[in-house]
Amino acid sequence: MHPELIDTLAIPNTTKIIFLIMDGLGGLPGPEGMTELETAQTPNLDALAKKGVCGLLDPVGYGITPGSGPAHFALFGYDPVKNNIGRGILEGAGIDFPMTEQDLLIRINFATMNSDGLIVDRRAGRIDNETNRRICQKLQKNIPLDGNVEVIFQSVKEHRAVLVLRGEGLTEEIQETDPQHTGMAPLSPRALVPEAKFTETILTNVINRAREVLSEEPKANMLLLRGYAKYRKYPSLYGRYRLNALAIASYPMYRGIARLLGMNIARQTETVAEEIAVLREHYHDYDFFFVHVKATDSRGEDGNFDGKVTVIEEVDALLPQITDLKPDVLVVTGDHSTPAVLASHSWHPVPVILSAATCRPDMVTYFAERDCIRGGLGRMPMMYLMGQALAHARRLEKFGA
Amino acid sequence: MHPELIDTLAIPNTTKIIFLIMDGLGGLPGPEGMTELETAQTPNLDALAKKGVCGLLDPVGYGITPGSGPAHFALFGYDPVKNNIGRGILEGAGIDFPMTEQDLLIRINFATMNSDGLIVDRRAGRIDNETNRRICQKLQKNIPLDGNVEVIFQSVKEHRAVLVLRGEGLTEEIQETDPQHTGMAPLSPRALVPEAKFTETILTNVINRAREVLSEEPKANMLLLRGYAKYRKYPSLYGRYRLNALAIASYPMYRGIARLLGMNIARQTETVAEEIAVLREHYHDYDFFFVHVKATDSRGEDGNFDGKVTVIEEVDALLPQITDLKPDVLVVTGDHSTPAVLASHSWHPVPVILSAATCRPDMVTYFAERDCIRGGLGRMPMMYLMGQALAHARRLEKFGA
Repeated sequence: MHPELIDTLAIPNTTKIIFLIMDGLGGLPGPEGMTELETAQTPNLDALAKKGVCGLLDPVGYGITPGSGPAHFALFGYDPVKNNIGRGILEGAGIDFPMTEQDLLIRINFATMNSDGLIVDRRAGRIDNETNRRICQKLQKNIPLDGNVEVIFQSVKEHRAVLVLRGEGLTEEIQETDPQHTGMAPLSPRALVPEAKFTETILTNVINRAREVLSEEPKANMLLLRGYAKYRKYPSLYGRYRLNALAIASYPMYRGIARLLGMNIARQTETVAEEIAVLREHYHDYDFFFVHVKATDSRGEDGNFDGKVTVIEEVDALLPQITDLKPDVLVVTGDHSTPAVLASHSWHPVPVILSAATCRPDMVTYFAERDCIRGGLGRMPMMYLMGQALAHARRLEKFGA
Repeated sequence: MHPELIDTLAIPNTTKIIFLIMDGLGGLPGPEGMTELETAQTPNLDALAKKGVCGLLDPVGYGITPGSGPAHFALFGYDPVKNNIGRGILEGAGIDFPMTEQDLLIRINFATMNSDGLIVDRRAGRIDNETNRRICQKLQKNIPLDGNVEVIFQSVKEHRAVLVLRGEGLTEEIQETDPQHTGMAPLSPRALVPEAKFTETILTNVINRAREVLSEEPKANMLLLRGYAKYRKYPSLYGRYRLNALAIASYPMYRGIARLLGMNIARQTETVAEEIAVLREHYHDYDFFFVHVKATDSRGEDGNFDGKVTVIEEVDALLPQITDLKPDVLVVTGDHSTPAVLASHSWHPVPVILSAATCRPDMVTYFAERDCIRGGLGRMPMMYLMGQALAHARRLEKFGA
């Protein structure tokens, strides 16, 4: 089944769907033989699991470790392979850059180059955000328009920035210039296909000019380019599912992904408690709510098993503030697994609860990876989750006569 | 997910993967209500199942009974439907015939025809191997080159041989000549598409000449053709996954399949104990080991339930010699099911254990079909197994940013 089949069946309704996404939720056993989720005391999640239907989701496919971009696309029902989004767009989305369909977005890493032209620090000593902003302004001021292509520098943070080329005829098929190892010269932004020659010429000029402009900088005296991505418009959640969606996320990248999919973006928040307050405040204004919890993933990436357990317990304690709203469909899951023992994203499937009045009971009474194996949703590709949610929200018509 | 997605993510590593394949492993209950695997005493496999993650694999698809060719292609991560390999190539591979991309390979069955031109024995009384070789030499000597197409006869065994046409413009779309029932005349090698007319002409000449050459033979006085297959090169395990692979298999056909996929082939062995000795001897020379146990399938095909149980117990007893090597990933499964009660291949999914340090625990403590239903791998298409193995061997990069 193609994930877009549901688009043809979507109908409006007044029902409400909440996706509570604990980033990197899935885990692996720690020293006690239990995963982070199995270790955490989660009476509210367990009650929800008992009432709802559980399962395990594969974000991209068997054995595939996803980045955050593909994983979130899958959560919202977009085929993550067909819609594999370039790093440049993710960076641009993360800083709220207003992209147009003429834009080629590129991730910049500022780097330190020695007098022999070799890269000695691929992150320019992680310069501070203030220096980053100053350098981007300097580049913007001193690198002029190149013919009909506009050149835009956007600061992100530390050593990271975004370069946007805006114009006709730009293409992505350019060699990345980061040599990936220190002691080597930057690579050239070589065209990988004949059609990319025009883009190569512009990027070569930009790099040469940038090198002159930055020559007096003590650390960030060079830029490395990667993640070339032509912006394109994605079909929105409203266009596909007739959902007025609100994204509540404290981290820029997730707000950026939500904006790419046409969601409205709630005001900036810092804590999960604040996010839930925003959810309650706007509950009557939207049909679909994407509530993103970043700290589960951050603790996992840090290799902090106990820290991840604590975050899960904190979310569990706040869950009644969500269930009190009595949403028609409440989904609790992650975008991928981030086991603390691996201190990285992983390929393991992600536990999920779907709670709705129309759930058929399964035998799962605890929300934990090994219990979800026996769940009524089974093990399924993540991109089909949205169809399940829409069905339980009575937002899909019958297929065929 | 397309199974070839993993190719784009594969990276080299020093980790080791072993696939222990018990051919036809999956079974059905015998008189005691338990399958062969459930009946066998397998303490070592059970311990491995408890430690690792289990599941059930569908070689080709729900309800599809696979031949050995598709089943092994799926095991190694090749879509078995898109890569459905013709019988001719399997036969050629099984006898180590050096195939070229100009070759059309055809399975020959020698048959007995009566004076009315009707087939009375489709297997020519299963002539002995010596007679087979003599007849093939006679045909080779007396059937000349036909224009630019070389004609090669290769003995296999009993009533089976391979015919190779080598040249330009040959095609597979030819009617098989075996009438499938005795008392009927052979069919003609009719072109099924206009482009096959050239091949039809050559085959018609070959068959007419062969009939003359074999006219004095008491049993094998005719040949029947089937399994037309144009040889083509398959991407290798090294090309796809960066795996230096060694195949350890006592039966020619499995060595042949492994060779088609670019594996190195270990010296000929007779017993499983010898195969494991070869594995241990070459453990430091390769990344991936395909160890093939034929006897499970043979006993199943014979309808010998107890014999199959015994083979499984023998493999279990040898398992510590494999686990002692401490491979990063050890997979134990079959290529398909061969229930002794059916005395044939079947469509039932195949139980699998994947054991690695990064396995997430499931609740399976015995290696048996009905326990594997609850395994953490779930029920999955066999062609995705390789991705799981590569992930656990830390040989796949992250997908997307």
